[in-house]
Amino acid sequence: METLYLIIINVILSVFAFFCTYNIIPHLKSMFISANLYGKDLNKKSDNKIPEAFGVVTGCTFLITIFLLIPLIFGRHMLQNDTTLFPHSEFVEMLAALLSICCMLLLGFADDVLNLRWRHKLLLPTIASLPLLVVYYINFNSTTIIVPKPFRDIFGISVNLGLLYYVYMGMLAVFCTNAINILAGINGLETGQSLIIAISILIFNVIELSGDCVQAHLFSLHFIIPFISVTFALLKFNWYPSEVFVGDTYCYFAGMTFAVVGILGHFSKTMLLFFLPQIFNFLYSIPQLFHFINCPRHRIPRLDKYGTLSPSYTECDNISTIGKMCLKLFSIFKIIHIEEKSDGNIKCNNLTLINLCLLKIGPTNEKTLTIILLIVQIVCSLFAFVIRYPLASLFYDV
Amino acid sequence: METLYLIIINVILSVFAFFCTYNIIPHLKSMFISANLYGKDLNKKSDNKIPEAFGVVTGCTFLITIFLLIPLIFGRHMLQNDTTLFPHSEFVEMLAALLSICCMLLLGFADDVLNLRWRHKLLLPTIASLPLLVVYYINFNSTTIIVPKPFRDIFGISVNLGLLYYVYMGMLAVFCTNAINILAGINGLETGQSLIIAISILIFNVIELSGDCVQAHLFSLHFIIPFISVTFALLKFNWYPSEVFVGDTYCYFAGMTFAVVGILGHFSKTMLLFFLPQIFNFLYSIPQLFHFINCPRHRIPRLDKYGTLSPSYTECDNISTIGKMCLKLFSIFKIIHIEEKSDGNIKCNNLTLINLCLLKIGPTNEKTLTIILLIVQIVCSLFAFVIRYPLASLFYDV
Repeated sequence: METLYLIIINVILSVFAFFCTYNIIPHLKSMFISANLYGKDLNKKSDNKIPEAFGVVTGCTFLITIFLLIPLIFGRHMLQNDTTLFPHSEFVEMLAALLSICCMLLLGFADDVLNLRWRHKLLLPTIASLPLLVVYYINFNSTTIIVPKPFRDIFGISVNLGLLYYVYMGMLAVFCTNAINILAGINGLETGQSLIIAISILIFNVIELSGDCVQAHLFSLHFIIPFISVTFALLKFNWYPSEVFVGDTYCYFAGMTFAVVGILGHFSKTMLLFFLPQIFNFLYSIPQLFHFINCPRHRIPRLDKYGTLSPSYTECDNISTIGKMCLKLFSIFKIIHIEEKSDGNIKCNNLTLINLCLLKIGPTNEKTLTIILLIVQIVCSLFAFVIRYPLASLFYDV
Repeated sequence: METLYLIIINVILSVFAFFCTYNIIPHLKSMFISANLYGKDLNKKSDNKIPEAFGVVTGCTFLITIFLLIPLIFGRHMLQNDTTLFPHSEFVEMLAALLSICCMLLLGFADDVLNLRWRHKLLLPTIASLPLLVVYYINFNSTTIIVPKPFRDIFGISVNLGLLYYVYMGMLAVFCTNAINILAGINGLETGQSLIIAISILIFNVIELSGDCVQAHLFSLHFIIPFISVTFALLKFNWYPSEVFVGDTYCYFAGMTFAVVGILGHFSKTMLLFFLPQIFNFLYSIPQLFHFINCPRHRIPRLDKYGTLSPSYTECDNISTIGKMCLKLFSIFKIIHIEEKSDGNIKCNNLTLINLCLLKIGPTNEKTLTIILLIVQIVCSLFAFVIRYPLASLFYDV
C-alpha cells in the first residue's frame, strides 16, 4: 500500500516533469545558440545550427523533481515526533545518489562547454562516485559475491572481494558514464538507448517488488521513473531530424543515474546485462580508444551522395603488434572490413557498433539506422531477462 | 583531541587543494578563452580577453577536497563493526550541504555560459536549498528563537516561528548567493570579500569550539577551511590586474557555502552580521533592482581619462512615486548624488556600495578602491564580533 502510494506520487510528479521539460526545451534553443553551444549535424546536408548540451535541461528538471519528491517520500517519517524512527540510511542513500548525479551533470556540462581532456573524464567520475561508495560501506558493506555453480569447486560457494568490490563499483560508475557517450553520433541514439535501458530497469524493479528487497528496488524506482519522463521529453526533440543535441552532459547524467541505482539498488550485475550493446561497443572500440590503431576525432558514419549513411573508415600507416592482433581477431569473427592500400597502408572501418551495423546491412538512412540499433538494444534487454530469470537457476540456487 | 585531529587533516588536505588550484588555473586559461568564456575588463584601457567563470575550477577542487575528507572524517566510525554507532545525522548534513553547493555550482556555471534570467536565479537556489531544509527538519527542527530582552514584554521569552523559520532559511540561501554577486565588478572584490567573510566565520567557529556546540562548529570548519584555501588560490589570479574573472559561478558557490554552514551550523544570525556590507549594498540597490528607477545592465564605476575610477550614473525620465521616495530618503542620509538635467530628467549615481565609496573619496584607482572596500568589510566583521560578544549580553542572557 505504502509502496503503491510512493509510486503513484512519483508518477504524478514525473508526468509534471515531462510537460515542464517538453515545454521548456523549445524556449531555450536560442539561448544555447547565442551562448555558442551548438553544432552542425554532420549527417545532414544542411548547415543549420543545432543547439547542443540539452542534457543539462533534462538533468535540472530531473533533480528538481527528486528534490520535490524527497519531502513527499520522507514526509510521514518527518511528521513523527520520534526522530529515532527516521530512516536515516534510506535518506543518506538518496542524498549520495543525488550528489553523484549532480556532480556528473556539472562535469558533463563543463565537458560540453570546455572540451575536457580524457584524463578528467576518467578521474572525475571516480571521485564523484566516492560518496556513493562511502554510503555503500556504511549501509551494507557486503562485498561477498555468490559463486556460480560451475566454479564452486575452485572458489567455494561465496567469495569476499573486499576492497576489490569497491574498485569494481568505482569502475562501474566510470564505465556507465562513458559507455553511452561512445555509442552515439546519430540522431536519437543516446536518448533512445538510455530510454530502453531505463525501461528495462523499471520492469526489473517492478518484478522484484514482489521479492525480498522491496526497499532497494523502490529506491531505484524513485530515480528511474522521473528519469524516463525527462528522457522521453528530450527524445521528442532529439529524434530524427534532431532539433537539439543532448551532449556529453546527457550521456554522463544518464550513465551516472544507472550506476547509482545499480550500486545502491544491489543489482549492478543485472544492470550490466542491460548494457550488452554498450559493452560490445566498448570492447569493439578498444583498439581505437587505446590507440592501438589510428582513432580520428569523429567516428560517426559518413553521409554518402545518395543521402544514406555508410561506414566511415580510418587509415593506419603504422600499426602496433597488439593492433594487428585485434584486427586479426575481428577478421576471424567477420566483424571488420579491411582494405590493403597500394602504399602498404591498411584501411578499416571505424570500430563502433554503428559502423558494424552499416557494414552488415549496407547503406541506410539515419532514421532507419537508429531504429535498428534501438531494436538491437531491445533484443539485448529481452536476452538479459532470459539470462536473469530462467538461466540464472542453472548457475545459482534461486 | 579528536577535534584537533580532524582540523589538522583538513588543513593538510586544504593546503594540498591550494597548490592544486594554484597550479591548475594558469593551464586552463586558454581552454576557457577558446570556449568563448571570456570578457573584456571594462575598467582597463586594454582590450585583452580575460577568461571568465573560473569559480567552476575552485568549486571543483573544493568538492574534491571534501569528497576526500569524508572517508577521513568518518573513517573511525566506518571501521567500527556496530553500524548503529555511525553518526548518520552528521553524515546526512555533510551530503545535503555538498548537494546544495554542487547544485549552485552547476547553476552558476550555467548562468555564466547561458546568461539565465532573473527568475531562474531566484527559483533555483530556493529549490537547491530544499535538501538542506529537510535535513534541518530531521536533525533539529528547532524553529524557536529567543526574543531579545527589550521585546520580551511584547513577545515573551521565546517565539516559535514554525514554518516561517524555514521560509527564512530558504530566503537566506537566495540572499547569500545573490548578495556577493551584486557587490562585484572590480578586480578582486568578489574573492576578497568572500575570503574575509570566510576568515571571520573561521575565527568565530574556533572561538565557539570551546563552547557547547562543538559538533556544529566543527561541521562548519570542515567546509570553511577548504573554502579559504581554494579562494586564496583564486584571489592570486583575480587580484588587480585580474588574469581571470570568477564569474557568477564563484559568487553562487561562495554564497551557498556560507548559507550552508550558517544554517546547519546554527549561527545564521551571526553569519548575517558578517554580511553587513552586502546587506547595506542590497538595501541601497533596491530602487534599481526592483526597477523603481532605471537600472542599466552594468552598474560598475566608469574609467575616466586619467585612468582612475569615478561613479557611474544613470538617467531616469519617468520615476515612480516609490522611486522618488527612495531618492529623497537617500538624499537625507547624503548617500546619493542627484543632478537635475535641463530637460527635467534626473541623473543619479548607480546605487551600489562601490559607487557610493567613490562619491565619498573621489576618483580612485581600481586597486586602491578594492583595498578600501575590503577594509570596510574587515571593519564590519570586527563590528560584528563586538555585537556578537560584548553587546549580545545586553540583549540576551549569555
